[in-house]
Amino acid sequence: MEAAQNAANAVPGARSVPGRRIPVPGTVSPEFQAAIAAPYRVPAWNADPGNAAEWKALVARLAAQTAAPLPALRERLGVVSTPEVIGGVKAWIIAPKVVPERNRHRLLIHIHGGGYVYNPGEAGTVEAVLMAAFGGFTVISFDYRMPPDAPYPAAMDDAMAVWKAALGLQPAENMAVFGTSTGGGMTLALMLRAKREGVPLPAAIAPGTPWSDLTETGDSYKANEWLDNVLVSYDGVLTRAARLYAAGRDLRDPQLSPIYGDLRGLPPTILTTGTRDLFLSNTVRTHRKLRQAGVEASLQVFEGMSHAQYLFDPDAPETREVFTEIAGFLDKHLGSAAKTP
Amino acid sequence: MEAAQNAANAVPGARSVPGRRIPVPGTVSPEFQAAIAAPYRVPAWNADPGNAAEWKALVARLAAQTAAPLPALRERLGVVSTPEVIGGVKAWIIAPKVVPERNRHRLLIHIHGGGYVYNPGEAGTVEAVLMAAFGGFTVISFDYRMPPDAPYPAAMDDAMAVWKAALGLQPAENMAVFGTSTGGGMTLALMLRAKREGVPLPAAIAPGTPWSDLTETGDSYKANEWLDNVLVSYDGVLTRAARLYAAGRDLRDPQLSPIYGDLRGLPPTILTTGTRDLFLSNTVRTHRKLRQAGVEASLQVFEGMSHAQYLFDPDAPETREVFTEIAGFLDKHLGSAAKTP
Repeated sequence: MEAAQNAANAVPGARSVPGRRIPVPGTVSPEFQAAIAAPYRVPAWNADPGNAAEWKALVARLAAQTAAPLPALRERLGVVSTPEVIGGVKAWIIAPKVVPERNRHRLLIHIHGGGYVYNPGEAGTVEAVLMAAFGGFTVISFDYRMPPDAPYPAAMDDAMAVWKAALGLQPAENMAVFGTSTGGGMTLALMLRAKREGVPLPAAIAPGTPWSDLTETGDSYKANEWLDNVLVSYDGVLTRAARLYAAGRDLRDPQLSPIYGDLRGLPPTILTTGTRDLFLSNTVRTHRKLRQAGVEASLQVFEGMSHAQYLFDPDAPETREVFTEIAGFLDKHLGSAAKTP
Repeated sequence: MEAAQNAANAVPGARSVPGRRIPVPGTVSPEFQAAIAAPYRVPAWNADPGNAAEWKALVARLAAQTAAPLPALRERLGVVSTPEVIGGVKAWIIAPKVVPERNRHRLLIHIHGGGYVYNPGEAGTVEAVLMAAFGGFTVISFDYRMPPDAPYPAAMDDAMAVWKAALGLQPAENMAVFGTSTGGGMTLALMLRAKREGVPLPAAIAPGTPWSDLTETGDSYKANEWLDNVLVSYDGVLTRAARLYAAGRDLRDPQLSPIYGDLRGLPPTILTTGTRDLFLSNTVRTHRKLRQAGVEASLQVFEGMSHAQYLFDPDAPETREVFTEIAGFLDKHLGSAAKTP
C-alpha cells in the first residue's frame, strides 16, 4: 500500500486515495457510534423522482416518518407546540413548558432544512423542539413554500415575512435566527436580504452545516463523498433539489448561495459541522468568509459526524452538546429586556 | 458507483469508501492550491531509520533543508533572531525590528513541532518567525532535547525550564505559549504540568493541530489517511516517533497524550487545523474536551489544508490569515502592562 500510494502521489495534482473501509470511531458516544455506523439513508439521499407528483409522494412519505415521533418527543422533553400564523405563513410556536426568566423576552426564528424539498409541515420542527428543550428558548418554526410547486424566491419570501412579523413581537436585539443545512443557507441569505432591504438584523445567528454554496464547490464535496452517510454525494438528491429550487437561476446568486454575498455586518454567528460532513467545506468556508468580513464567528466541529447528524438522536450526548453550545453563544449575544412600549 | 456503494453500505458498520482521485479545490489561493497538489513528503512521512545513527543523519539532513531559507525569510519579513540561553536551554529570541507599543511587555513562548524527532536547532524556529512577523510579538523559541538521545521527559523538562525562566521576564498574564503538531501537544502537556506543579499559567495558548493523542485514536487518523499529503498515515514516522519518544511509557499518559488529562483551568485556547489534516480529529476532540472542561476555546479549520500546511509557504494568504487570527485572539487575552518591580 505504502509504495503504491507514494507512486500514485509522486507528481503534483489530484490526490489519489485507495478504496478503504473506515471503522466506526470509538471516540464518540455509543449513540453516536450507532449513527455513524448506520447505512446510507436510501432513498433520502439519492431520490430521483420523475415528475412533480412523484416528488410530492416521496416528500409526503418521508415527512410522515419524521413527524410521527414528534408528539412523544415533545412530551418527553417538556416542550409545547402551538400552531399559529406568523406574517401570513403557517408556523408553530415551540417552547419549554416553563421558559427561564432570562429568556422571557427572547425569541428564536427557526428555518428548517431538507434540501429545499423535504420536511414540510411539522416534520420541519424537529430542530426547533431540540432547541426549545436544550436551550430553554421560545422558537417560531415555519412551513415555507417549497418546490416543485414553489421554487425560489417563495421560501425566502416566506422567511422574510416571518422575520418582519417577528420584529413586531420582540426587539431585534433579543432575537436570533437558526437552522440546519438548507435552513442554515436560508439563515445567511435572510441576513443578506434584510441588510439590503434595511430591515433590522437579529443579535445572533446559528447556521448549522449551512448549504451556503449550491454549486458543487468546496473540497469536502469530494473528500467526504461516500463517507458522509446522510448526504452521501452531491450527485444525488442535492443536485436535483438545487435545480428544482433555482428554477433556472444562477446557483451562484447570493440569495441561493450566500457564500458569494457580502457578509460584512452580519451578526455574531455560531456554525456547527462534523468531520465526515459533506458540507464540512461549506461550513468552514463560511466561517472563514465571515471572519474575513470582520464578523464574530465561532465554529464547532464534531468528531465523525456526518451532515446534520445532531438532529437524529435526541438522546445522544453530542446532540445535547451541540444545542447547549449554541444556546450559550446566543445567551451571550442576545438582549433580554422587554420591548419598550 | 451509486448502486455498488449503496450495497456496500447497506448494513451497519465500517464505512466502505471507493478508491478516488480527489481534485485540488479551487476554493483556496493559488499558493495553497500548489501546497495541496504537492506530492507526499517522502521520506519525511515514512522514514524508518534502522538505528540512532540513521535517525540522526536523516534528522540533520531535513533540518538543514528547513533552516537554509531562514536568514532570507527573516530579512524579508523584518524579523531579527538572537541566540540566547533561557532556563539553561538553547533558545532564540525572535522579534520584529520594531515591536508595536501594545506588545512591548508581552512575550510568547514557542514550542516547535516535528514529531518529537525533527527540527532541531534553527529549523525549529520557522513558526516563531511567522508569528513575530504577522503578529508583531517577541517570541522565545527553544531547542528542546529529543530522541533518540533524549526520550520523554527531556523535552517536557526543557519546556518547563523555559516557561519558569520566562516567568521572570514578563508577567504570566502578558504571555502565551504556542506551537504546532508536537509543539501543540507539548503546549497542552505543559499546561497540565504547570497546573500540577502550582506554577502560573499563561493568559492564552495556541496549539496548532496538536498531537494531543499519540495513540492512533480519532476518526481522521483513518478518514484522512492518504489524503493528508504531509503526514499521510499514522503508519509511518509517527508510529516510530511516538515509540522512540515514549520509550516504553504508556502512550495514554496525559504528559504524552494530553487529551487524556484534566483540562479544567486551562487558559483560553485557539486551535487551528485543516479539512484534510490527519490530526483533524486530534484538534476537534481537543476543542470539545476543552469546551466540556469550561475553557474558552476557539477553533479555526482551513479548507483543504493538510497537517501544519500553514507553516510551509509564508507567501500564501492562508498563512497570514492563520497567524493574524491567532494574534488577534492573543491580543484579546493578553495583558500589556509592564511587570511591577
